[in-house]
Amino acid sequence: MKKAIFYHAGCAVCVEAEQQVLDALDCNRYEVESVHLAQNSLAIEQAQLAGVRSVPALLLDGTVFHINFGASLDEVKGACHA
Amino acid sequence: MKKAIFYHAGCAVCVEAEQQVLDALDCNRYEVESVHLAQNSLAIEQAQLAGVRSVPALLLDGTVFHINFGASLDEVKGACHA
Repeated sequence: MKKAIFYHAGCAVCVEAEQQVLDALDCNRYEVESVHLAQNSLAIEQAQLAGVRSVPALLLDGTVFHINFGASLDEVKGACHA
Repeated sequence: MKKAIFYHAGCAVCVEAEQQVLDALDCNRYEVESVHLAQNSLAIEQAQLAGVRSVPALLLDGTVFHINFGASLDEVKGACHA
Protein backbone atom coordinates (compact mmCIF):
# COMPACT_ATOMS: atom_id res chain seq x y z
CA MET A 1 0.00 0.00 0.00
CA LYS A 2 1.14 3.50 -0.80
CA LYS A 3 0.45 6.23 1.72
CA ALA A 4 -1.65 9.37 1.21
CA ILE A 5 -1.59 12.00 3.97
CA PHE A 6 -3.89 14.99 3.81
CA TYR A 7 -2.67 17.92 5.92
CA HIS A 8 -5.25 20.50 6.88
CA ALA A 9 -5.95 23.13 9.51
CA GLY A 10 -9.69 22.77 9.88
CA CYS A 11 -10.51 25.83 7.76
CA ALA A 12 -13.32 25.89 5.21
CA VAL A 13 -10.96 25.64 2.20
CA CYS A 14 -9.28 22.61 3.80
CA VAL A 15 -12.42 20.74 4.79
CA GLU A 16 -14.02 21.05 1.38
CA ALA A 17 -10.87 19.86 -0.38
CA GLU A 18 -10.33 17.04 2.12
CA GLN A 19 -13.70 15.41 1.63
CA GLN A 20 -13.69 15.46 -2.14
CA VAL A 21 -10.02 14.71 -2.80
CA LEU A 22 -9.73 11.86 -0.29
CA ASP A 23 -12.97 10.36 -1.57
CA ALA A 24 -11.55 10.30 -5.12
CA LEU A 25 -8.40 8.36 -4.17
CA ASP A 26 -8.17 4.63 -4.78
CA CYS A 27 -8.38 3.23 -1.26
CA ASN A 28 -7.36 -0.20 -2.53
CA ARG A 29 -3.90 1.16 -3.32
CA TYR A 30 -3.59 4.09 -0.89
CA GLU A 31 -3.75 4.02 2.88
CA VAL A 32 -5.34 7.40 3.62
CA GLU A 33 -4.58 9.49 6.70
CA SER A 34 -5.83 12.97 7.57
CA VAL A 35 -3.76 15.19 9.88
CA HIS A 36 -5.20 18.30 11.56
CA LEU A 37 -2.15 20.54 11.98
CA ALA A 38 -3.77 23.22 14.11
CA GLN A 39 -4.34 20.64 16.83
CA ASN A 40 -0.88 19.11 16.65
CA SER A 41 2.32 21.18 16.73
CA LEU A 42 4.57 18.10 16.39
CA ALA A 43 2.79 17.23 13.17
CA ILE A 44 3.55 20.74 11.86
CA GLU A 45 7.27 19.94 12.08
CA GLN A 46 6.77 16.62 10.29
CA ALA A 47 4.75 18.35 7.59
CA GLN A 48 7.48 20.96 7.11
CA LEU A 49 10.10 18.23 6.76
CA ALA A 50 7.92 16.60 4.11
CA GLY A 51 7.92 19.89 2.15
CA VAL A 52 4.48 21.20 3.07
CA ARG A 53 4.37 25.01 2.85
CA SER A 54 0.63 25.64 3.03
CA VAL A 55 -2.63 23.84 3.74
CA PRO A 56 -4.52 22.04 2.42
CA ALA A 57 -1.77 19.76 1.11
CA LEU A 58 -1.76 16.16 -0.04
CA LEU A 59 1.31 13.97 0.39
CA LEU A 60 1.11 11.16 -2.16
CA ASP A 61 3.76 8.52 -1.55
CA GLY A 62 6.18 11.21 -0.35
CA THR A 63 5.46 13.91 -2.97
CA VAL A 64 3.71 17.09 -1.81
CA PHE A 65 0.81 18.59 -3.72
CA HIS A 66 -0.43 21.96 -2.49
CA ILE A 67 -4.15 22.10 -3.24
CA ASN A 68 -5.82 25.50 -3.50
CA PHE A 69 -4.70 27.75 -0.64
CA GLY A 70 -6.16 27.99 2.83
CA ALA A 71 -3.24 29.21 4.96
CA SER A 72 0.55 29.17 5.04
CA LEU A 73 2.23 26.86 7.53
CA ASP A 74 3.50 29.93 9.38
CA GLU A 75 -0.08 31.11 9.85
CA VAL A 76 -1.04 27.67 11.13
CA LYS A 77 1.90 27.76 13.57
CA GLY A 78 0.77 31.13 14.86
CA ALA A 79 -2.73 29.80 15.43
CA CYS A 80 -1.31 26.73 17.15
CA HIS A 81 0.84 28.61 19.63
CA ALA A 82 -1.72 31.35 20.29
CA MET B 1 -19.13 7.30 -13.20
CA LYS B 2 -17.96 10.66 -11.94
CA LYS B 3 -15.66 12.70 -14.13
CA ALA B 4 -12.12 13.85 -13.34
CA ILE B 5 -10.49 16.29 -15.76
CA PHE B 6 -6.85 17.24 -15.34
CA TYR B 7 -5.98 20.55 -17.03
CA HIS B 8 -2.33 21.15 -17.80
CA ALA B 9 -0.10 23.13 -20.12
CA GLY B 10 2.69 20.65 -20.69
CA CYS B 11 5.10 22.32 -18.26
CA ALA B 12 7.28 20.37 -15.83
CA VAL B 13 5.13 21.24 -12.78
CA CYS B 14 2.04 20.05 -14.65
CA VAL B 15 3.45 16.80 -15.98
CA GLU B 16 4.78 15.67 -12.61
CA ALA B 17 1.48 16.41 -10.88
CA GLU B 18 -0.54 14.82 -13.67
CA GLN B 19 1.14 11.45 -13.52
CA GLN B 20 1.02 11.05 -9.77
CA VAL B 21 -2.40 12.57 -9.05
CA LEU B 22 -4.25 10.80 -11.87
CA ASP B 23 -2.61 7.51 -10.90
CA ALA B 24 -3.93 7.87 -7.34
CA LEU B 25 -7.57 8.35 -8.38
CA ASP B 26 -10.01 5.46 -8.20
CA CYS B 27 -10.54 4.66 -11.89
CA ASN B 28 -13.48 2.41 -11.00
CA ARG B 29 -15.44 5.48 -9.90
CA TYR B 30 -13.84 8.27 -11.95
CA GLU B 31 -13.61 8.57 -15.70
CA VAL B 32 -10.27 10.35 -16.11
CA GLU B 33 -9.49 12.82 -18.88
CA SER B 34 -6.37 14.92 -19.39
CA VAL B 35 -6.60 18.20 -21.34
CA HIS B 36 -3.52 19.99 -22.70
CA LEU B 37 -4.59 23.64 -22.73
CA ALA B 38 -1.60 25.05 -24.58
CA GLN B 39 -2.61 22.99 -27.62
CA ASN B 40 -6.30 23.82 -27.47
CA SER B 41 -7.61 27.40 -27.19
CA LEU B 42 -11.27 26.27 -27.12
CA ALA B 43 -10.49 24.12 -24.10
CA ILE B 44 -9.05 27.20 -22.35
CA GLU B 45 -12.48 28.84 -22.53
CA GLN B 46 -14.15 25.70 -21.16
CA ALA B 47 -11.58 25.53 -18.35
CA GLN B 48 -12.23 29.19 -17.47
CA LEU B 49 -15.97 28.57 -17.34
CA ALA B 50 -15.31 25.66 -14.97
CA GLY B 51 -13.41 28.04 -12.66
CA VAL B 52 -9.83 27.11 -13.54
CA ARG B 53 -7.47 30.03 -12.89
CA SER B 54 -4.09 28.30 -13.14
CA VAL B 55 -2.54 25.01 -14.19
CA PRO B 56 -2.17 22.29 -13.17
CA ALA B 57 -5.77 21.97 -12.01
CA LEU B 58 -8.00 19.00 -11.30
CA LEU B 59 -11.75 19.18 -11.86
CA LEU B 60 -13.39 16.52 -9.67
CA ASP B 61 -17.06 16.10 -10.49
CA GLY B 62 -17.33 19.83 -11.27
CA THR B 63 -15.25 21.22 -8.37
CA VAL B 64 -11.89 22.82 -9.22
CA PHE B 65 -8.74 22.03 -7.25
CA HIS B 66 -5.68 24.10 -8.13
CA ILE B 67 -2.66 21.88 -7.51
CA ASN B 68 0.71 23.55 -6.93
CA PHE B 69 1.28 26.34 -9.46
CA GLY B 70 2.73 26.06 -12.96
CA ALA B 71 1.22 29.03 -14.80
CA SER B 72 -1.84 31.28 -14.74
CA LEU B 73 -4.47 30.75 -17.41
CA ASP B 74 -3.56 34.17 -18.84
CA GLU B 75 0.01 33.00 -19.30
CA VAL B 76 -1.23 29.84 -21.02
CA LYS B 77 -3.43 31.96 -23.31
CA GLY B 78 -0.44 34.10 -24.24
CA ALA B 79 1.57 31.02 -25.11
CA CYS B 80 -1.35 29.65 -27.11
CA HIS B 81 -1.82 32.73 -29.26
CA ALA B 82 1.89 33.47 -29.70
